[in-house]
Amino acid sequence: MKLKYPFLDLAKVHKPMAQELKQAAASVIDSGRFLFGEQTRLLESELASLCGTKHCIAVSNGLDALRLIIRAYKELGFLRDGDGVVVPANTYVASLLSISDNSLKPILCDVDSQTMCFAPEELERIVRRGCVKAIMVVHLYGMPMWNEQILNLAHEHNLLVIEDNAQAIGAQASVAGVQGTCITTGGLGHAAGVSFYPTKNLGALGDAGAVTTNSDELATAVRALANYGSDRRYHNIYCGLNCRMDEMQAALLRVKLKYLSEETGRRCLVADAYSRHICHPLVKTPSADEKRCAPVWHQYVIRVDGGKRDALRNYLAENGVGTDIHYATPPHMQPCYQDLEHAPLPVTEQLASEVVSLPIAYPMDGASAYEIAQIINGFPCE
Amino acid sequence: MKLKYPFLDLAKVHKPMAQELKQAAASVIDSGRFLFGEQTRLLESELASLCGTKHCIAVSNGLDALRLIIRAYKELGFLRDGDGVVVPANTYVASLLSISDNSLKPILCDVDSQTMCFAPEELERIVRRGCVKAIMVVHLYGMPMWNEQILNLAHEHNLLVIEDNAQAIGAQASVAGVQGTCITTGGLGHAAGVSFYPTKNLGALGDAGAVTTNSDELATAVRALANYGSDRRYHNIYCGLNCRMDEMQAALLRVKLKYLSEETGRRCLVADAYSRHICHPLVKTPSADEKRCAPVWHQYVIRVDGGKRDALRNYLAENGVGTDIHYATPPHMQPCYQDLEHAPLPVTEQLASEVVSLPIAYPMDGASAYEIAQIINGFPCE
Repeated sequence: MKLKYPFLDLAKVHKPMAQELKQAAASVIDSGRFLFGEQTRLLESELASLCGTKHCIAVSNGLDALRLIIRAYKELGFLRDGDGVVVPANTYVASLLSISDNSLKPILCDVDSQTMCFAPEELERIVRRGCVKAIMVVHLYGMPMWNEQILNLAHEHNLLVIEDNAQAIGAQASVAGVQGTCITTGGLGHAAGVSFYPTKNLGALGDAGAVTTNSDELATAVRALANYGSDRRYHNIYCGLNCRMDEMQAALLRVKLKYLSEETGRRCLVADAYSRHICHPLVKTPSADEKRCAPVWHQYVIRVDGGKRDALRNYLAENGVGTDIHYATPPHMQPCYQDLEHAPLPVTEQLASEVVSLPIAYPMDGASAYEIAQIINGFPCE
Repeated sequence: MKLKYPFLDLAKVHKPMAQELKQAAASVIDSGRFLFGEQTRLLESELASLCGTKHCIAVSNGLDALRLIIRAYKELGFLRDGDGVVVPANTYVASLLSISDNSLKPILCDVDSQTMCFAPEELERIVRRGCVKAIMVVHLYGMPMWNEQILNLAHEHNLLVIEDNAQAIGAQASVAGVQGTCITTGGLGHAAGVSFYPTKNLGALGDAGAVTTNSDELATAVRALANYGSDRRYHNIYCGLNCRMDEMQAALLRVKLKYLSEETGRRCLVADAYSRHICHPLVKTPSADEKRCAPVWHQYVIRVDGGKRDALRNYLAENGVGTDIHYATPPHMQPCYQDLEHAPLPVTEQLASEVVSLPIAYPMDGASAYEIAQIINGFPCE
């Protein structure tokens, strides 16, 4: 059965810009230049400008962006094998993979069920216990994870702050103590990894990612590590990787970047319509502290109480509405992390059983969100 | 100054098939499917058929292909941290990176100056010393590295044979003891990594690679590891990576694959013309044992005696011929491997100071190779 509101239809997303995308692809084909060309250079400069950072390095994907940041900090002597990195337990597995792939230790911190940020007492306890060298904040669903506590703990304990900005390009958060000043994600911490996975707000037509940072030293190391560890052709200063973005994806992303603020604006309207019109005793809508942050709504995720999550999903599908779950199984419950030690993570586990993501990408608009809200409101409680 | 014979001009390489490439790109853009779609599946099946292997897994690049093979063998219990992998010292640094990135130990073996294969006594000595669990053969320049000794040692010592097939897709080698039977590279050992870096005989328009193998077990593990370690959506059995080939590169490669045998045939004619017509006391042309192998001439690499390599390059440039060096610095002399222990590697070091690669890609043909040969023959000896 074809859904009236599929969760996401990328062919539809690209339809309004298909001609431009095809022209961009054709230009790259004719250019004969497929790596480290003009498109990549221009994209890096445009993204740095968007994130308000000094540097942007285009790379292969979001996981590689985070892996490269951590590996670069190891090469530069800021991190060592076995160091602990605090990371929210309520995240996609890639956040943890970037840490454990570098032989560092992910230290899972449960989240607060209201703010979805680190549970404050838990974070305090973990950091004070020692062994922690970095905090990875995860701007899940496009919602900045940022507050005074993170900033203060990082300052007090001299911790690196790495942003998993896979889902939140263009989101903003206010800086503690500096009233009215908003900083864009990707520029909040010491370095950030962005993902341009096709489903993202700014999605490539394949895998792609980027590192943003204000540090010259880190940018230089990441750039070398992503290109076989070479600082110039055939000169390898590090045992590096191949994590390059190609000109094709860079050119396609530059087309899509022109539409990003329109797309973000539309997502905000859809989210707003959902939040205003969904009204059901079993359903909790997400809340953004608008004084402190401007999310970009990569996902609009509701929570369904009473063990009715799957029933609601079925009901929505029957009524023409596609949904998804981000994420049904938290990283610590994945087979690959069965040996990872961690404190109890009750909020994360509860969230995993309650969350449902509603359609939010183009061509969703306020009217369709209103219609979906009405359908949700009609979900039988029994 | 514009060279009459540039070393490689990718815009020219793609000109005859530009329309097809653009149509392929446009179809992918319209499809809305950018990973794990039909193009990738068809490419995998076509490549498996070309290499004569049961499996082909499309991945992000050639280095990742080798890294995934070794990591998969670790996950499957065939290799462990610290195990030794014999690898020819005369190779591109990526061969070694795939080993050391997996916490295994590259054991460098010098090459024979005639066959360019492992120096036989050296290989024997290394393997008999123990600690070796795998042999990585490198089909450098498109020339299969394969002989009875490798086969016998692997058999006798129960070693894995991993092919670095970055440069030799479609090349063939005869199997020892089975007269007249040729096997295509990628299917000679237990598993092989291919590169589709843009300059390759089969080059993507960006980074791409593939793993070929006859092992079901290895194929399944590589496929999972390349996709976050997941055997199904959001179910991570390994701490994996993101090493996926996208539909765009798969579709473009499928166009180029149709022209590969023509391109290989043309390269063989060019190589033949060079070998027949270059005649200079300081220049040694490469030799292929035609009874035992059919190379695909990814590079045509001559050696220049008497410390005249750079002088010849300058002379050729002045006469309109572009050249390149593969590779000026062997891996063990790279800063990143300064602490790697190894026996003396005199042949590898001498090769690095003598080699020059001549133009061989489209639109080179026999006549242009003849002309370049005449120019080389006129190189003053003093």
